[in-house]
Amino acid sequence: MVELVEIASADDPRLADYRDLRDVELRKALEAEHGLFLAEGEKVVRRAVEAGYDARSFLMAPRWLDGLADVLDRSDAPCYVIDEALAEEVTGFHVHRGALASLRRRPLPEVDDVLAGARSVLVLEDLVDHTNVGAILRSGAALGFDAVLLAPRCADPLYRRAIKVAMGAVFSLPWTRLPDWYDALPDLGARGFTTVALTLAPDAVPIEEAVAGVDKVALVLGSEGHGLSPRWEQSADRRAIIPMSAGIDSLNVAAATAVACYVTARR
Amino acid sequence: MVELVEIASADDPRLADYRDLRDVELRKALEAEHGLFLAEGEKVVRRAVEAGYDARSFLMAPRWLDGLADVLDRSDAPCYVIDEALAEEVTGFHVHRGALASLRRRPLPEVDDVLAGARSVLVLEDLVDHTNVGAILRSGAALGFDAVLLAPRCADPLYRRAIKVAMGAVFSLPWTRLPDWYDALPDLGARGFTTVALTLAPDAVPIEEAVAGVDKVALVLGSEGHGLSPRWEQSADRRAIIPMSAGIDSLNVAAATAVACYVTARR
Repeated sequence: MVELVEIASADDPRLADYRDLRDVELRKALEAEHGLFLAEGEKVVRRAVEAGYDARSFLMAPRWLDGLADVLDRSDAPCYVIDEALAEEVTGFHVHRGALASLRRRPLPEVDDVLAGARSVLVLEDLVDHTNVGAILRSGAALGFDAVLLAPRCADPLYRRAIKVAMGAVFSLPWTRLPDWYDALPDLGARGFTTVALTLAPDAVPIEEAVAGVDKVALVLGSEGHGLSPRWEQSADRRAIIPMSAGIDSLNVAAATAVACYVTARR
Repeated sequence: MVELVEIASADDPRLADYRDLRDVELRKALEAEHGLFLAEGEKVVRRAVEAGYDARSFLMAPRWLDGLADVLDRSDAPCYVIDEALAEEVTGFHVHRGALASLRRRPLPEVDDVLAGARSVLVLEDLVDHTNVGAILRSGAALGFDAVLLAPRCADPLYRRAIKVAMGAVFSLPWTRLPDWYDALPDLGARGFTTVALTLAPDAVPIEEAVAGVDKVALVLGSEGHGLSPRWEQSADRRAIIPMSAGIDSLNVAAATAVACYVTARR
């Protein structure tokens, strides 16, 4: 049974987990140090708890208590009840969806566990934008992918913004970080996956052709600015492109991934 | 030939066009009132000017002057030269890509002009997120669409964030606003377009089936939260869905649009 704690001051030290949510660099450091992540909005908070993450605490305005009553009832963590102006003072922005939770991270699963039974896998190299990471997880889950692997430097799927954009897919789709960057794609090859890198490289073939008839596929995506590293581009089994109109730079990585997932799921 | 004007104070009234860029509501009002829009980043500023938009002024740190020298040389507008800390004080955030321009809006073209010769058209109802509008324009341009029509209340493609995400597509892809919301889709039908609404409605068919063999297609997209209005959903000729995994809410509208454009372009 949750303990409701009324909070009267934005300086209350018990709110430390919720401070300055707009400051990405500060938050990354704070969340790593304390092994926590934040969920925002009733639906996301619910999904995080239902996915088995332990809450450190909840923070919300009184009007959100009823909707989350069953979730709160099953938790031993304190729920800080705060008016919305005060919440804004603490977090640094207007909390549109009202409810926040600070949850404990868990050790990431082994690659073997994430890949068990998987036939379609996304592999993200050094994406920096949390919105893109979240959107890609959401598309992967919706379009029939079974797992996601992240390079060591890829942006964190448990960052608040990524979770929000992923609409819960970060809790439902198995994912983990690759321990080794350099040999990541050959290692996937050794596990029976054909690695298909999305790239504008001159030898890239249309994505439909690259995945046709392939059983286990790992779709490999690079960063927003510079795409894949030369190592990953060259160590992939195949290079593929989404055919585009003349004169266009490229698709946004999240849009390209959605198309590639759709095509790959129907191979 | 541009006039270079060194600026020594963040309060300089000549910088009015560039103030408080993070305040979306304020900016919407200010930009509408003065008939202006902002372009951000060397590439986007260049594309806006090359697309024929008149600059009211430019604002940049000294190190961006060289890269845009040819663009500035062809303009009569003043270029305010400002150090980066001062620029941050004026705009309210760190201007990563350095150069800004304030440009004059032009009267929107007639629907007839935008549709002339078009075979694949996107129609956006009440999208509210500028990032989504920008991403959709970018995907449409990349994946072979010819034009975009916006409902009267759809978010502005010339808002700074939309332009940035669209990567210039807002300048290359013909677009305008529909004068009439209620009969927008029947009107497109009268012009020979088959209107295909993306929706989760129970009678929606897979998108591939909905567009198969159709000549002129108008793909119709609803808002992020509630999708299409009942009027638009029901007045479309066909309702289509992107087939998704069981238990998934839906795709993000920009991801769904990318998939739908890809499929439609290959009909």
